[in-house]
Amino acid sequence: MSGLSGYRGPSAKILTEAGASIGDVLEVQTGGESIRGTLVPRYEHDDDGHIVIKLKNGYNVGIAVEKVSKVVRLEKGEAPKFVAPQKVASKGLPRVAILGTGGTIASRVDYRTGAVRPATTSEELYSLFPELSDVATITPEIVLSVYSENLEPGHWETISKRVSEVVAEGVSGIILTMGTDTMGYTAAALSFALKGLPVPLFIVGSQRSSDRPSSDAFLNLIGAATMAVEADFSGVYVVMHADSSDDRLTVHAGTRVRKNHTSARDAFESMGVEPVGYWSREGMQVTARAAPPPRGKTGSFAAKPKFDARAALVKFYPSMAAQYLGALFGSGLRGVVFEGTGLGHINSKNIEVVRKFVADGGVACMTSQCLWGRVDMNVYDTGRDLLQAGVVPLEDMLPETAVAKLMWALANSKSTEETKALMQENLAGEVTARTTQRR
Amino acid sequence: MSGLSGYRGPSAKILTEAGASIGDVLEVQTGGESIRGTLVPRYEHDDDGHIVIKLKNGYNVGIAVEKVSKVVRLEKGEAPKFVAPQKVASKGLPRVAILGTGGTIASRVDYRTGAVRPATTSEELYSLFPELSDVATITPEIVLSVYSENLEPGHWETISKRVSEVVAEGVSGIILTMGTDTMGYTAAALSFALKGLPVPLFIVGSQRSSDRPSSDAFLNLIGAATMAVEADFSGVYVVMHADSSDDRLTVHAGTRVRKNHTSARDAFESMGVEPVGYWSREGMQVTARAAPPPRGKTGSFAAKPKFDARAALVKFYPSMAAQYLGALFGSGLRGVVFEGTGLGHINSKNIEVVRKFVADGGVACMTSQCLWGRVDMNVYDTGRDLLQAGVVPLEDMLPETAVAKLMWALANSKSTEETKALMQENLAGEVTARTTQRR
Repeated sequence: MSGLSGYRGPSAKILTEAGASIGDVLEVQTGGESIRGTLVPRYEHDDDGHIVIKLKNGYNVGIAVEKVSKVVRLEKGEAPKFVAPQKVASKGLPRVAILGTGGTIASRVDYRTGAVRPATTSEELYSLFPELSDVATITPEIVLSVYSENLEPGHWETISKRVSEVVAEGVSGIILTMGTDTMGYTAAALSFALKGLPVPLFIVGSQRSSDRPSSDAFLNLIGAATMAVEADFSGVYVVMHADSSDDRLTVHAGTRVRKNHTSARDAFESMGVEPVGYWSREGMQVTARAAPPPRGKTGSFAAKPKFDARAALVKFYPSMAAQYLGALFGSGLRGVVFEGTGLGHINSKNIEVVRKFVADGGVACMTSQCLWGRVDMNVYDTGRDLLQAGVVPLEDMLPETAVAKLMWALANSKSTEETKALMQENLAGEVTARTTQRR
Repeated sequence: MSGLSGYRGPSAKILTEAGASIGDVLEVQTGGESIRGTLVPRYEHDDDGHIVIKLKNGYNVGIAVEKVSKVVRLEKGEAPKFVAPQKVASKGLPRVAILGTGGTIASRVDYRTGAVRPATTSEELYSLFPELSDVATITPEIVLSVYSENLEPGHWETISKRVSEVVAEGVSGIILTMGTDTMGYTAAALSFALKGLPVPLFIVGSQRSSDRPSSDAFLNLIGAATMAVEADFSGVYVVMHADSSDDRLTVHAGTRVRKNHTSARDAFESMGVEPVGYWSREGMQVTARAAPPPRGKTGSFAAKPKFDARAALVKFYPSMAAQYLGALFGSGLRGVVFEGTGLGHINSKNIEVVRKFVADGGVACMTSQCLWGRVDMNVYDTGRDLLQAGVVPLEDMLPETAVAKLMWALANSKSTEETKALMQENLAGEVTARTTQRR
């Protein structure tokens, strides 16, 4: 952890020149005034053009670097400590588990060290989000601590097993917090591993960290907690902002959701289907055509948590070389999901390589990089040739969902034929009926 | 070409049993009636549940296979011939070139052989689309005949060279017809190879073939032809349906367009920017913020048509193995475009492999699989590590545009440093200004 955590570029430069570190008391001089206070850390999301000072009255002020004429380090002052008010849940509320995997939601900043760390006790969580204590008895725990781009099928296994245990312990619902990068893949993976889950599991994250005024963390968390108690359905869902306002959430089916923006709060979208529902403080609304499964008996649930990472997602691009695909197939792969063009095509010169992969026991599946719409490999020669080579068409399954499913299917079948059959069976809403398809 | 072109499944079965071929005169018996006429070929798009018969009055009727009790082959009859009315362009109209590359637009069915073949003379084209003769003097020619999934950088070179020649010959504008699968990649590739093009080039295709009542072929073609004459701007654009109606087209910048549906007529969307404009029979409307370059002098234009196919597009997925990436890099690749997660990430365990690839002279670039929004590799550790490994961040460039650009940049630079510089320079609107970004 740097002494200037979160600062970079121009803001880091001016602070370094002043010999300032997080927690120091500074005087920041601008054209007309000088501002005194304690230097607080910034989030990695933040821009590099502001210095943020905590004033004596507790407010933070951001000062644009270009307006700063001088920074004077007054003292190695007593940095403000984060004091958690001792808040406990109202008695008799249903229990909800929050499983943390390393995202920035529900985290707190320690101003002394500048460290951002997740809340690990109910008390800390309630102190960050007091409203939660009126909703549920929350048990937060850290299951993993990993950036979402580093999540592996092995982590999905860990999460699935812990979910099973938590269900057996008795909860009204489960919240999984994670980074948003691979949230779509994880939601899909858990939809298969946790098929038959008797309670709802809501995956939430935040696109802006919880220390920022524009953070989406709180609404996502309070919405998920409320639904974990109140929803009359079960299954795996992603719950994130519905739009750029901070008052409405969308509930997405775990197998039909995709991150469609790098930074917007409403980055997640249901693909080819209406979302399962919406949530606001006024209540929850399940959409007309959505039919999420009802809550079930907790005693009979058993996860199928195993995954096999030897599957790849390969997006086709013009002139994709057979030698590249051959190299990939030669490296121990058991399955591949193609993101083909249009109705499900790759170039003809790769068909023989694919045929050989399938003949040797590999499982090759086809989705479309169009992302909306359905593959149809009967329309053109190339599609028919690929079908003949043994490629399994996956209807309108999302590519990201498909590779997670393939990793699961490879680990949960005894033969290649069984894997292929699993891939074509609609297990968790990953394929939509033609009649319900939107857009 | 099969004797039952376009028929498959149940319809092919019943016709085969009757010994029928395209062009034969049949009697098709259903419960209540019998229908006599000539068997006509079907398009590959069509369903497999209908037999289509051309009646003596010239109308085609489709008969559902499940209603057919019997098919009798009456005679190896004289199949109807396609007779082209001799239509010529009105005199004095500006010249527009149509370059065909193998899509289904502007094609005609020869009922005798069942072959679908593109119109190769002005007369044929005018006979298919008489309205065109009032708009421009059209010169159609077949530059390539290739499915769009089989298009290669070498084909982009062929097209670019031919465009240069056509410009030198003097045209008001150019229409390129192609299959829609890789239209986005091709539009991007040509945007770089044809930078400075003094006339507009409109890429059109059809999501439904021109023999079907629901075809989008005609409107796309007439709109492109009209704009090729009337538009006051130059450059490379995709022109396809704006919505599900058949009366409005969208003009997309060649570097910012993506096929976002497998089959819808309005599958193409401008990404992160407003479209350049819209066209309907009422006229053309250029959107407020669009500033397409004006037409230029034709004498000074020189294409840069070279491409190097040794570049790959790699979409990251959870647990992507370093050995897969290593195998890819070991197969002679000069450049790679990653489609990372979120702000531009791949898993940490691949960073060393990427670092080595770059150290050995490879060019590695980063885009986001979110498709909307902008990469920002300064926010998280993983991004910063990738930057340090030499990965070039590409702002909000589309992954498909980026790999086409990389193939072009590799062939048009003398050093790795020059390639990287080209990748980061905004040459053809492939990167948007932050202020204009939408969605």
